[in-house]
Amino acid sequence: MARNTQVLADHNAPEVTRTLAEFVVNHPSKGWSEAVEHEAHRTFMNWLGCAVGAAHHESTQAALAAVNMLEPAPQATLAGLKERVDIASAALINGISSHTFDFDDTHLKTIIHPAGPVASAVMALAEHLNSSGREVIDALVLGIDVSCRVGNCLYPDHYDRGWHITGSTGMLGAAAACARLLKLNVHQTQMALGIAASQPIGLREQFGTMTKPFHPGGAARAGMMSALMASKGFTASPKAIEAPRGFAQVASTKYDWSEIDSELGKRFEISFNTYKPFACGIVIHPSIDACVQLKNLGVVADQVEKIELKVHSLVLELTGKKEPKDGLQGKFSVYHGCAAGLLFGRAGEEEFADEVVTSQAAQDLRRKVVAIVDDSIDEASADVTAYLKSGDPIHIRVEHAIGSLENPMTDSLLEKKFHDLSDPVIGQAQTNELIKSCWSLAQSPNLQTLLKQCLPS
Amino acid sequence: MARNTQVLADHNAPEVTRTLAEFVVNHPSKGWSEAVEHEAHRTFMNWLGCAVGAAHHESTQAALAAVNMLEPAPQATLAGLKERVDIASAALINGISSHTFDFDDTHLKTIIHPAGPVASAVMALAEHLNSSGREVIDALVLGIDVSCRVGNCLYPDHYDRGWHITGSTGMLGAAAACARLLKLNVHQTQMALGIAASQPIGLREQFGTMTKPFHPGGAARAGMMSALMASKGFTASPKAIEAPRGFAQVASTKYDWSEIDSELGKRFEISFNTYKPFACGIVIHPSIDACVQLKNLGVVADQVEKIELKVHSLVLELTGKKEPKDGLQGKFSVYHGCAAGLLFGRAGEEEFADEVVTSQAAQDLRRKVVAIVDDSIDEASADVTAYLKSGDPIHIRVEHAIGSLENPMTDSLLEKKFHDLSDPVIGQAQTNELIKSCWSLAQSPNLQTLLKQCLPS
Repeated sequence: MARNTQVLADHNAPEVTRTLAEFVVNHPSKGWSEAVEHEAHRTFMNWLGCAVGAAHHESTQAALAAVNMLEPAPQATLAGLKERVDIASAALINGISSHTFDFDDTHLKTIIHPAGPVASAVMALAEHLNSSGREVIDALVLGIDVSCRVGNCLYPDHYDRGWHITGSTGMLGAAAACARLLKLNVHQTQMALGIAASQPIGLREQFGTMTKPFHPGGAARAGMMSALMASKGFTASPKAIEAPRGFAQVASTKYDWSEIDSELGKRFEISFNTYKPFACGIVIHPSIDACVQLKNLGVVADQVEKIELKVHSLVLELTGKKEPKDGLQGKFSVYHGCAAGLLFGRAGEEEFADEVVTSQAAQDLRRKVVAIVDDSIDEASADVTAYLKSGDPIHIRVEHAIGSLENPMTDSLLEKKFHDLSDPVIGQAQTNELIKSCWSLAQSPNLQTLLKQCLPS
Repeated sequence: MARNTQVLADHNAPEVTRTLAEFVVNHPSKGWSEAVEHEAHRTFMNWLGCAVGAAHHESTQAALAAVNMLEPAPQATLAGLKERVDIASAALINGISSHTFDFDDTHLKTIIHPAGPVASAVMALAEHLNSSGREVIDALVLGIDVSCRVGNCLYPDHYDRGWHITGSTGMLGAAAACARLLKLNVHQTQMALGIAASQPIGLREQFGTMTKPFHPGGAARAGMMSALMASKGFTASPKAIEAPRGFAQVASTKYDWSEIDSELGKRFEISFNTYKPFACGIVIHPSIDACVQLKNLGVVADQVEKIELKVHSLVLELTGKKEPKDGLQGKFSVYHGCAAGLLFGRAGEEEFADEVVTSQAAQDLRRKVVAIVDDSIDEASADVTAYLKSGDPIHIRVEHAIGSLENPMTDSLLEKKFHDLSDPVIGQAQTNELIKSCWSLAQSPNLQTLLKQCLPS
């Protein structure tokens, strides 16, 4: 079995590894707009809520049990847990927990979940270095810019090929962010990116298993170690990203180098970050949004005869499970998503619990949902009509679901999401304090207060 | 820039992840011939000599300095060093040192250096588990079978694409070997292979930098952690190697599944392992071998007017550096290789030291070497004629260089190579003892004696 592949190597690629290294080292602290600065805080907060929320999930706990076999030094905090581990393992574990609920951020242009690899590495290393909140935000913005720009350069071919792009570009973002925290020079940062370039992590085949959240965790760990190694003089190819046998050309069939330096230092990819209101794949969100609106209009499940859903074919391709058997399968069921939206007016992690997905109420309502493919409807939209036992049908058209770039989660919705995730783990009062610490992060002399607030009391 | 790629996914691949997991778990201890058993000891010994020899190299030391930032627990031995680190970091560091001199073993069918990822993971984990020598040899043979069979399945397309196949299949071999040591069941072993499949490490672009030896070290570490995670219940796709978006189809354009189970448990890939007599790329070896023979015939540099070398074009493509400026460049110079062979009768790590490569004697002799491309000569052969100031020319034709499968390094040559590497680090007397421990490894109740002998006294 062989693919018909004609390899046309690009021997004249611009030196993007160098370009990115210079950018990461030289870009001034807070060298961006207030909007970018605020988005960085939203990104960090959303990431931390997801990580705290999944602290006790079996994925996080299984990975932690393996790490504990290494008898790690208690260097760094784990979100939502009392245990402490070494900084590289903390990057791994927080990266896993932050992606476990599939509830973290999304850079829609590339489907990268940018915070997982970058913030997980940054928080652990910043604790160790006693970095200021200012330095943390700077590292976060710059690291995310690196991974998302490399993503823009490779997307969609790299993703189509089967790479889980979050982990297979995230190691570069994590390396860049850690290099910035460590105050490496341009050469060292170039080496850090080079070492990281040899370690893309993640296959789409792993979706639906614990190895999916391992990808951002592994990328966080790999990127941090690359920066630590570079700080000690370890070398790599200075063209490890762009060379004919470098990362981009080896792991993708498309590479648009102009994406790396187009408006570099002027346009920041974190501006295009979005946050999920619902704990499932983004293609279901418009349909859930419509059903939440139905509930808000007073529609109750018993009244409903049929819910007719017109959606893009991709929605059913990715999430067409009619009879999900457990919580995880529920996340791949637009039918369950709609049922949850109408039953509860929300679709957070709780609404994808096994017992909710298998409940009679959810099963009954799911069976009333009829999905019709209509490729004239955008992937980001949905057209939903509720036919009731009495009265006129109610029609809802969602062009841009809540949580999209056009209709973003508000700060208060993000806070509510944070509470939903964090309250069960560290309590409501402490979550309130933690949220405050997130909003004021750039003003903090270091992360000590915020880190203490992450622990169960 | 995009490649013209037609992706033909194979949706009917056999379940090779499962097949390999069953093999690793169920194959009986020492379920192979005496020849395979002996080759396993040769493989382990050659690997360990390389690792001890490079203990103080700057690559090893830079990586160790980075690992020490994690304040690792003193769980496991580093070859040739007094420091102890956690087992995962020991796998990393020993993997780096064992490949630093480019002097380790080669599975010629795939150009995989199989011991680096597998033995590095096995030695560290076996120390922690107090495994017997028998278990170590079993894990080594089975782990190497896994990585080399996957290599056979993907080679040459995966390598041609730019992957450094040692690290990009080695994580599977390391995971398999560690799963065997941990006595995981079939399901857990399948999960270990699955987690590892998301972590191929290594780009050929890194050749000539420290990141090249990082690849086997990183693969050793990734494979071990995959097995530890699987032992704690972490999950992955059960078809992570073969699925359309699994490792093989994502990271290669060729996959010959029959290579996985052809004579599985009957033919062992470690049988095809070879050991380098010369500390440089294998394509130069026939030319060096011929020049060593010239020296043994009494030819001395001063007598030589010209050395005419007829070689395959690949030799000059890979190692055509006429005027190498330092030791590393010398390894990519067939001219220096010939000069070393004729001057010293050998070409170990010492003969590639900066001061030797830049010495006047080496420079003078290199300039007398004239290389002619002749593609009728096999890559594994060389045709060398020495024209002398007086007397008849001397012609040497090497069909199979020393160290090839057809003309293997003898046990005593392997011991001599071990001494050359190890004596400067741990002394000759202790090296003698260590060599004995290697030969009797399968009879040892555990690795304690051997590990103590690896330390500088």
